[in-house]
Amino acid sequence: MAEKVYQRGKQSLEFGKEVYLAESASIVGTKEGEGPLADLFDMIGSDDMFGCDNWEDAESSLQKDAVYLVLKKASVSPNDIRYLFAGDLLGQSIASSFGLLNYQIPLFGIYGACSTCGEGLSLGSMAVSAGFADRVVCVTSSHFASAEKEFRFPLGYGNQRPLSASWTVTGSGAFLLSGEKLGQDSYGNGGRARAKIAGITTGKIVDFGIKDSMNMGACMAPAAADTIYQNLMDFNRQPSDYDRIITGDLGYVGQKALIDLLKERGFDITKQHMDCGIEVYDREAQDTHAGGSGCGCAAVTLSAYILKKIEEGIWKRVLFVPTGALLSKTSYNEGQTVPGIAHGIILESP
Amino acid sequence: MAEKVYQRGKQSLEFGKEVYLAESASIVGTKEGEGPLADLFDMIGSDDMFGCDNWEDAESSLQKDAVYLVLKKASVSPNDIRYLFAGDLLGQSIASSFGLLNYQIPLFGIYGACSTCGEGLSLGSMAVSAGFADRVVCVTSSHFASAEKEFRFPLGYGNQRPLSASWTVTGSGAFLLSGEKLGQDSYGNGGRARAKIAGITTGKIVDFGIKDSMNMGACMAPAAADTIYQNLMDFNRQPSDYDRIITGDLGYVGQKALIDLLKERGFDITKQHMDCGIEVYDREAQDTHAGGSGCGCAAVTLSAYILKKIEEGIWKRVLFVPTGALLSKTSYNEGQTVPGIAHGIILESP
Repeated sequence: MAEKVYQRGKQSLEFGKEVYLAESASIVGTKEGEGPLADLFDMIGSDDMFGCDNWEDAESSLQKDAVYLVLKKASVSPNDIRYLFAGDLLGQSIASSFGLLNYQIPLFGIYGACSTCGEGLSLGSMAVSAGFADRVVCVTSSHFASAEKEFRFPLGYGNQRPLSASWTVTGSGAFLLSGEKLGQDSYGNGGRARAKIAGITTGKIVDFGIKDSMNMGACMAPAAADTIYQNLMDFNRQPSDYDRIITGDLGYVGQKALIDLLKERGFDITKQHMDCGIEVYDREAQDTHAGGSGCGCAAVTLSAYILKKIEEGIWKRVLFVPTGALLSKTSYNEGQTVPGIAHGIILESP
Repeated sequence: MAEKVYQRGKQSLEFGKEVYLAESASIVGTKEGEGPLADLFDMIGSDDMFGCDNWEDAESSLQKDAVYLVLKKASVSPNDIRYLFAGDLLGQSIASSFGLLNYQIPLFGIYGACSTCGEGLSLGSMAVSAGFADRVVCVTSSHFASAEKEFRFPLGYGNQRPLSASWTVTGSGAFLLSGEKLGQDSYGNGGRARAKIAGITTGKIVDFGIKDSMNMGACMAPAAADTIYQNLMDFNRQPSDYDRIITGDLGYVGQKALIDLLKERGFDITKQHMDCGIEVYDREAQDTHAGGSGCGCAAVTLSAYILKKIEEGIWKRVLFVPTGALLSKTSYNEGQTVPGIAHGIILESP
């Protein structure tokens, strides 16, 4: 019988050995660079093509630059990274493939729609905790223009967006996970890290039968509720055991649904809940309707904002829950529902 | 410092604890059911729609049925499975999402093009070896008609295929990985398994600049050569240490390139090499040109044929290397190259 030492409840792991989120980097587009988190990003593009010939290349360059930045900030070379865990929203994950090929690091390609940041951090922390890797990098991206083309209409069509629609974040976040702090000595003393990954709760696909691809918040809220509920059960915790419970991109519509769904199951997270899609844009000034979304939304908000609060000791323990909507334009056009998935990451002071 | 006990060389792991490939299942379409492996598949569809309304749904039903079959053969319930590792070739992996949602098992979605079977077995065996899961299921699929629509032309166009083109396998393979043999007693005695996963070699993206999406074998051969070379280096082995070295879907064109590339690097694998894409169809009678391909190609050949040879003791140690081409129709139309990736799995007698 394999050891059950790490397994908690039905869907969670608590890591026995330390897994540090040692360093992170974020790069965003112009709209995000005009939003409330502008001062916190590592790099803001001067235009959304990022010097490339098409939107897909531009998104690839975001991933390339985010990985470059996180390695540079940590003074670590690509040779010191055992695995990359990477994904994006585009068909066949081409933003990752073409953005990362020059790094020549063994790659696990992942797909969890906008939950991909949580999936990468889960698999990356499993690899580090088990001693399969000393250091891994997890990276995800999204781009407003490539996502609109992939899922809805090319920008040139000028289609109108309903108020329930969210705005795909142009951005990429990269995270260096390590079994030790940066600069820690051989006795395990000293060193720095942005946070510790204490555990994870891996999500199931949850389908409430919603079919509106212009209302992703409603599609994903049931999955977020399911993962948060399971996390609280698996670790026998109350919402107040977390300083914040932060979803990826539910936006204003999904936030309301999430809070209602969890109240029905006996938990009130009103005081703890935050959503990256709500934080990343200014509701009044930026006219993004329901909020931000995309693989990049949770990733850049984690890197720029959430980790800063943990690093500064303002938040001691955060449940970070990126949320994904599992649709494609083909499944949508064939009349399928839009199921959701959400992966939970427990972040603590390092 | 994290333990390095499992790490071998630059890109490989050797598992310290036993990881068994306890059971497997395969389901295929009509063409595969007329091929040389016909008698070995668990199920052959009577037509390629599998009772569904469209090709994508048909592919989803393949994954659903493959998982159902593997659990039934092993007498294991979905509740006993800690994680699913699943992926396919379609944009946003919809074959997996809609095929697997009813199982309600925590899901890690993966994308490695036709190497996905190897990626799933890698991540699944890592999870089991580390004690993060007692049992996981890894599943992948492809479907000729959904793949032609996704990557090239809908079947209705009746486009002509060059001789270098391969034929996407309609099929799905599911694999139950477990920390113990099926039916093993509490002292670790007895029980059965199809094979043991002794180690893995995780591939990097390799790009030789080839742009021909109708010649996938040539696109993927450099990646296969790279992973096989690295496996031999990391474990300090010769090709003759393996009874077979089996690639996923290089076909006749890619096989020649692979053997030449490895000869240039000092290894002759002529005697050991086999390719699932070559085995799955009859070259003369079935007119599939370069051979079979797709996520399902390596998966169904592993389940039906390779594991049978290992189980019967005919092969003691096999290096199984599913190969993937990292393109999308968007990247192809934008003039990008077709990079490859390949993931190696060391299978041994259980």
